Amino acid sequence: MSEVTEILKKYSKNIDNEIENSLSAISPEELYNASNHLFNSGGKKLRPALTILACDAVGGVFEQSFKTAAAIELIHTFSLIHDDIMDQDDIRRGNPAVHTLWGEPMAILAGDILFSKAFELVLETSVDSNSYKKLSDALAVVADACVKICEGQAEDMSFEGKFDVTEEQYMDMIYKKTGALIAAATKSGAIIGGASDEVILAMEEYGKLIGLAFQIQDDYLDVISDEESLGKPVGSDIVGGKMTLMVVKTLADAPDEDCERLISLLKENNPNHVGDVINLFNKYDSINYAHNVAQGNVNKAKQLLEILDDSEAKRALMLIADFVLERQS
Amino acid sequence: MSEVTEILKKYSKNIDNEIENSLSAISPEELYNASNHLFNSGGKKLRPALTILACDAVGGVFEQSFKTAAAIELIHTFSLIHDDIMDQDDIRRGNPAVHTLWGEPMAILAGDILFSKAFELVLETSVDSNSYKKLSDALAVVADACVKICEGQAEDMSFEGKFDVTEEQYMDMIYKKTGALIAAATKSGAIIGGASDEVILAMEEYGKLIGLAFQIQDDYLDVISDEESLGKPVGSDIVGGKMTLMVVKTLADAPDEDCERLISLLKENNPNHVGDVINLFNKYDSINYAHNVAQGNVNKAKQLLEILDDSEAKRALMLIADFVLERQS
Repeated sequence: MSEVTEILKKYSKNIDNEIENSLSAISPEELYNASNHLFNSGGKKLRPALTILACDAVGGVFEQSFKTAAAIELIHTFSLIHDDIMDQDDIRRGNPAVHTLWGEPMAILAGDILFSKAFELVLETSVDSNSYKKLSDALAVVADACVKICEGQAEDMSFEGKFDVTEEQYMDMIYKKTGALIAAATKSGAIIGGASDEVILAMEEYGKLIGLAFQIQDDYLDVISDEESLGKPVGSDIVGGKMTLMVVKTLADAPDEDCERLISLLKENNPNHVGDVINLFNKYDSINYAHNVAQGNVNKAKQLLEILDDSEAKRALMLIADFVLERQS
Repeated sequence: MSEVTEILKKYSKNIDNEIENSLSAISPEELYNASNHLFNSGGKKLRPALTILACDAVGGVFEQSFKTAAAIELIHTFSLIHDDIMDQDDIRRGNPAVHTLWGEPMAILAGDILFSKAFELVLETSVDSNSYKKLSDALAVVADACVKICEGQAEDMSFEGKFDVTEEQYMDMIYKKTGALIAAATKSGAIIGGASDEVILAMEEYGKLIGLAFQIQDDYLDVISDEESLGKPVGSDIVGGKMTLMVVKTLADAPDEDCERLISLLKENNPNHVGDVINLFNKYDSINYAHNVAQGNVNKAKQLLEILDDSEAKRALMLIADFVLERQS
């Protein structure tokens, strides 16, 4: 077991307990089961661990961040449930998606109630009467991330079948869709930990950068990994015609002829074209480019941590930044 | 124009402004348009007016409740958008539903972002540093109502095709689906207005009672009104096989034979059976029963207002309680 896996495992029981307590009162039973489903299918629990570590690393009482950490995981799960409906993805974490088992109406509700429970959970954070401001700041961070997740998903949907997306637009989309919640995780942890504004900003930026790297690495692994490590066929993003940094980069650098070729290959959604698309990516060095962008983000994220005093938690945040690029799935 | 219509109109500009400001930054444009759609189709804005009036009636600075009032309307609208998807209702307020125009994925997101924006809006309520507790209490009320709305919708869905629903189960469902948000409207207004715990509780109960009366009256109007007043054919709930207090009451009081007859009529979803069903309702006095339950709730709600000092706002709350039963659509 890698050191990061151990770090993530360290807090998972606390997070699970908070989530269980939060959801236990949901009725009727069908809604309870639907909203609980994905928590029974694993998941790395990276985001809540980041909240707890950020709280700890800024010198806060890390137990005070458990509820907000769990809330971040509820919001992540809500967005997965709704995304799977929107994208018509029937499998999540190797199991049937919520809407596959309970139908779309119950899956919409399951997402909605996790969303509501997330806000309830943050509000249950016990703070003394002087620190209601912390609570309201943490809540604002969470609510803002929720707005961004919706906007990012809408942008992602608007990219479908369109290939005139700039790198800036692409990065904005993945920031909103993936980076914003990870940034909210670290930022809310720092707020609850009582950090200064400067440190809160650094922790937010750290979260944003590793969030972006995480998404770019996902796309990168889809073309350089193998089916066994990935748990799904190589090139599934290509077959799905998905916009990735490699597509954006190739379209930006290639002459018209190769651009047209790439677009037509992506539009065909044909597994036999994966090799041809990868060759085009390589012709314009886009795979290396994506990897370098991700690596650059991780390096910057680690530099931002220098603002913190040395601690076990800071070391863990360093390791997690590296882990984003080391993971094979 | 009735006096209540004038009262509701009095604040509608403030509420509209808050909603416009809250939603103006949403991107991309498609998501902005989808989330704005229902605000362009009218709506009574009863809930936000109740928040403002409750704040005013308890002696608070009513302008401080504008953002929370608008947030309540955002949550109401979010739930309409998602309900229309779940119930496959293609028309809302005489216009195409959000999912009819933008498709289900964008409608899911439009609901989600209104939900997120609602929490942002409450958090923007300007409170002095001593009253963050008010803010967090108001937020907890809103989040709790959201949980209940989801549970109520799930219960409503679970009743479909089932006819062994007790009056208690039915009342619990409509409390969660309709009453909880109206109770949250009046309760959060009272909290922001700085009311005592006793007054806050009374205002919550007032909201709950008129919310229940509102829903029962909706079902009652569906059988006693006429098509012109309703804006839709009489008996559409009957044709839809919908569970109402009249159905619950008839099934509770009628012998097996008439119960079976009612169930089979409701299952046929046939407009020609509306008269037969209404005859069955009358045979067991269920229509009067429903009206009396609604009237009883309104009377209790008005009694609860006696805890307040006399004011224009208190008078408005009295009038609104009566309006719930006087309205024809």
